[in-house]
Amino acid sequence: MMTKKEKLTDSLKPIVALAKRRGFIYPGSEIYGGFANTYSYGPYGVELKRQVRELWWKTFVQKRQDIVGLDGPILLHPQTWKASGHLDGFNDAMIDCKECKSRFRADHLVEQSLGIDGEGISLKELTKMIQEKVNCPKCKANDFTEARHFNLMFHTPISKTGGHPEDIAYLRPETAQAIFLDYKNILDTMRVKLPFGIAQVGKAFRNEITPGNFIFRTIEFEQMEIEYFIREENWEETFEKWLKDMQDWCSLIGLRKNHFHLKEHLPEKLSHYSKRTVDIVYDFPFGTSELYGLAYRTDFDLSQHKEFSKEKLEYHDLETKEKFIPHVIEPTWGLDRTLLAILCDAYDEEELENGETRTVLHLEPRIAPVKAAIFPLMKKEPLRGKAKEVFELVQSVYPAEFDMSGAIGKRYRRQDELGTPFCITIDFDTLEDDTVTIRERDSMKQERIPIKEILTYLRDALKF
Amino acid sequence: MMTKKEKLTDSLKPIVALAKRRGFIYPGSEIYGGFANTYSYGPYGVELKRQVRELWWKTFVQKRQDIVGLDGPILLHPQTWKASGHLDGFNDAMIDCKECKSRFRADHLVEQSLGIDGEGISLKELTKMIQEKVNCPKCKANDFTEARHFNLMFHTPISKTGGHPEDIAYLRPETAQAIFLDYKNILDTMRVKLPFGIAQVGKAFRNEITPGNFIFRTIEFEQMEIEYFIREENWEETFEKWLKDMQDWCSLIGLRKNHFHLKEHLPEKLSHYSKRTVDIVYDFPFGTSELYGLAYRTDFDLSQHKEFSKEKLEYHDLETKEKFIPHVIEPTWGLDRTLLAILCDAYDEEELENGETRTVLHLEPRIAPVKAAIFPLMKKEPLRGKAKEVFELVQSVYPAEFDMSGAIGKRYRRQDELGTPFCITIDFDTLEDDTVTIRERDSMKQERIPIKEILTYLRDALKF
Repeated sequence: MMTKKEKLTDSLKPIVALAKRRGFIYPGSEIYGGFANTYSYGPYGVELKRQVRELWWKTFVQKRQDIVGLDGPILLHPQTWKASGHLDGFNDAMIDCKECKSRFRADHLVEQSLGIDGEGISLKELTKMIQEKVNCPKCKANDFTEARHFNLMFHTPISKTGGHPEDIAYLRPETAQAIFLDYKNILDTMRVKLPFGIAQVGKAFRNEITPGNFIFRTIEFEQMEIEYFIREENWEETFEKWLKDMQDWCSLIGLRKNHFHLKEHLPEKLSHYSKRTVDIVYDFPFGTSELYGLAYRTDFDLSQHKEFSKEKLEYHDLETKEKFIPHVIEPTWGLDRTLLAILCDAYDEEELENGETRTVLHLEPRIAPVKAAIFPLMKKEPLRGKAKEVFELVQSVYPAEFDMSGAIGKRYRRQDELGTPFCITIDFDTLEDDTVTIRERDSMKQERIPIKEILTYLRDALKF
Repeated sequence: MMTKKEKLTDSLKPIVALAKRRGFIYPGSEIYGGFANTYSYGPYGVELKRQVRELWWKTFVQKRQDIVGLDGPILLHPQTWKASGHLDGFNDAMIDCKECKSRFRADHLVEQSLGIDGEGISLKELTKMIQEKVNCPKCKANDFTEARHFNLMFHTPISKTGGHPEDIAYLRPETAQAIFLDYKNILDTMRVKLPFGIAQVGKAFRNEITPGNFIFRTIEFEQMEIEYFIREENWEETFEKWLKDMQDWCSLIGLRKNHFHLKEHLPEKLSHYSKRTVDIVYDFPFGTSELYGLAYRTDFDLSQHKEFSKEKLEYHDLETKEKFIPHVIEPTWGLDRTLLAILCDAYDEEELENGETRTVLHLEPRIAPVKAAIFPLMKKEPLRGKAKEVFELVQSVYPAEFDMSGAIGKRYRRQDELGTPFCITIDFDTLEDDTVTIRERDSMKQERIPIKEILTYLRDALKF
């Protein structure tokens, strides 16, 4: 019998299968049996990811006068993580089964096995509970090590010029700190005035003990993050504005309004640096889980870096002559999770009138990896040449695909699974009157339009 | 007295200074005194990098029917590096000064101090030469350790689910292997036929002992890479085509034809897997050095992965019924080096008629981070409001900037240093007749055009 959790996870299966079958997402290092829950984005996955990333950058950086971009290193000075608190506090409690050598998060184990909320329980108590009452979920033995803290940062020895061979560099576990490290450079070289934000997209790494649920939690992931600098007294209104902007973003990428929700962090569960945190959670097939986060980080980070670096990190207000450390509102988006939510939201198996089932991705056209597919009715000339002409017309403006293999119905099914909003067929009538059949993905309705109107038609329909 | 090398490196200084002053590139972790030669891309640097990356992707992936994209992990299965030869062979010979603890590449040391080409000399011989004849370039002592091999891959312990706490993951030293690992998935899920390529853009990491020359050699860098799969018999013609495509790319991003050259690798210096390698070298201020590389990798990588993974990596030709391992041509572009070449090529200090000097970046408009800057002649209304209207018109289509601080001449100088191709000024005449002054960066010529023609004007001028 399947447990409730297995059943839920199970419903990710058709999405995982489509993602692989159609070249969106492959298991990482698959020819070597996979590796540590990593994934590769295939040809359509890269395009989907690129379009979401571009849309985010346009929305939050290029179209706004109050936010500038940054691209900082993955390898930052080790003091960064002392100042940020990650070296001392970025830990999970873990425990190993001595019998089968499986490793578990101790807090998750008491939660799943005993129904007790494991957060905030000491290592000693966790060890006691587990050793007394829990059997290993893998091998059913009751023979555990002590629970201990396990830092989530990856780290590598690094030989710098000048030679300190024992030096360690950490792979950043969040992109945020790279922003705080360049806050002063931005202040000094850009003409920014409060309130202003610094935006960054890039990879972060966490040595997660229990990654899982496909690309939901992986050891290597891409974050889109903004540190938004403000005067302390404006934090509440700024927080509310960002809550709205983040929800608008969810709609912009096509997530249905009833599928995402706000989840306020309880005051006693807030991180040490935060006065308020709200998650945007999404109804994933395996349960409702964090998609995005919005945190009021106070002046914690800049104050810490000021103390550790001895640099002057005050903002100078030239009009009021004040000098102070700005406070920070931090909206964070996980890019991989965004893709997972998009795929889950868009995936459908529809029963057709003829009794068949079609699998379709109802992707928001704005982010669809292919905007239009062009089919000659048959491979032979002059249909093929005419279709190539139409393809080149569309391709000059939009990501497009040319397909002449198999029956038209089969080609539609393929494009439905890729989420392509429009399919354009060139048939014998085209040769007579320069019109084509354009078929819309969701309604499956077909229209006849002149070739010379295709680009206008697509521009209006794609809002792109 | 400066040595020749110091003089050359020295001429990078104004470019490094501009890059920092104008928010293109900052030293990494600067508030902590910098870290291991890492760099951050500031607001204008990110935009320049994004535009180059996008142009590359459009040119080599979206506009071509024979190349698909991929985005594989940085952390790959460790067997990857056994198979590729990196674990055993990706070494530099290094030697430490016992006196001042400085670390050097032994081959570079004999080259610089003794004028002997250090490549291919054994560790034992290197040690002997250095211990006998070389003084430390830093402290002048002659007291060295033995030379020894030093693997260039960063590596981190990794705890996978299931618990093998001693496992090691390597940070990929090149993006290429991530492509070879997914070659089979691409074959199985995409409808590719030889010849075809797989393209990837992403970070790679090398524990370089002597990084340097600004962003030319860094421990963390971004590669744009294509593995192009072919039949063995077609390697020579494919190689020539790629040589041409790569040179066309150099022109596309605005590098002057007399600044880049081809450099054939001598047969005895080829990597073990390569039958021919040509570098595209660029005349950097510190000397002519490798910008891009084109290598014929034979079937080395796929054959190695086939052997180590036991997977079937043969290509099936459905028409001829043949099964074989394809051969590979690999064009590689360093993104950071591309930016450095672009900045070096575009940088100029020009003497003006009035005797003043203007610093200007003659960036190819296609990749300029800001396409147009909009200035009200004065801050006051209605000039300001009118200028805002024009700004919003331009900004809806192109990355644009609004600037109303200081004299117009000063604003021109700022935009010249950012490489902005066009500045548009709104003055009192604008209020009368809806025309503006548009000033071109390189010629500094000014024209009067109607507001309603601005977008057309820019489109024609920017080819964008």
